[in-house]
Amino acid sequence: MELALRLAEEAAERGEVPVGAVVMEGDVVLAAEANRMRALGDPTAHAEMLAMRAALAARGTGRLDGCDLYVTLEPCAMCAGAIAHARIRRLYYGAEDVKAGAVDNGVRLFAQPSCHHAPEVISGPGERRAEALLRQFFRDRR
Amino acid sequence: MELALRLAEEAAERGEVPVGAVVMEGDVVLAAEANRMRALGDPTAHAEMLAMRAALAARGTGRLDGCDLYVTLEPCAMCAGAIAHARIRRLYYGAEDVKAGAVDNGVRLFAQPSCHHAPEVISGPGERRAEALLRQFFRDRR
Repeated sequence: MELALRLAEEAAERGEVPVGAVVMEGDVVLAAEANRMRALGDPTAHAEMLAMRAALAARGTGRLDGCDLYVTLEPCAMCAGAIAHARIRRLYYGAEDVKAGAVDNGVRLFAQPSCHHAPEVISGPGERRAEALLRQFFRDRR
Repeated sequence: MELALRLAEEAAERGEVPVGAVVMEGDVVLAAEANRMRALGDPTAHAEMLAMRAALAARGTGRLDGCDLYVTLEPCAMCAGAIAHARIRRLYYGAEDVKAGAVDNGVRLFAQPSCHHAPEVISGPGERRAEALLRQFFRDRR
């Protein structure tokens, strides 16, 4: 989560909403990304999507089963859906996203009977730093 | 939808779950893609995701407002989330997906108060061909 937070900090410096994500397989970092919506002109370029795609490319098995995703902010519906598709084993997220989150807020995707794979979810690690980063970012832009 | 169905047919020949997607801006095709999960070893490489990313790259405005998405199968939660992020104006889909769909089934994402943008949804065009394609594909693989 330390690495994810550092990536989020760097993203803020580039004017990106500060969210970072890391995919780990055991002790090995498979991929580490931050939001790049602005740089790529792509509103789907969330840190989690980029990190999972990079990890899938690195792993080459078409799945991330047995892998864990660390992300500084609660994933949205798009990213939660991707987490289920990729079969992430464990999801660690920092700050809650009351507005757009889809894990413990909103549609609570992994709790739905329609969800074909639900990771174990651990929320809270890095929460305070992740929240402070986001708050500062949006304050600076007002 | 004709083009989306043709792309889905071609995808089936490559061993991909036959789903095709086209992004239009007025009369102009911005992007046309089919599922490439197998080819890319990426379970997030759904036709809609690929078509929207390509359309965003082609358009360069960071959004697809005013654009319409035609897809042969009801989008899942990941794709529905991406549709909201990209601000697609109108979504046309063919076959319903009772298991994994997230528009008129499952979490019904666009109907949730947490959803920040909901496209107009028109379901049914191409439904019978889209369904027949999927049924045939899964029958052949049993």
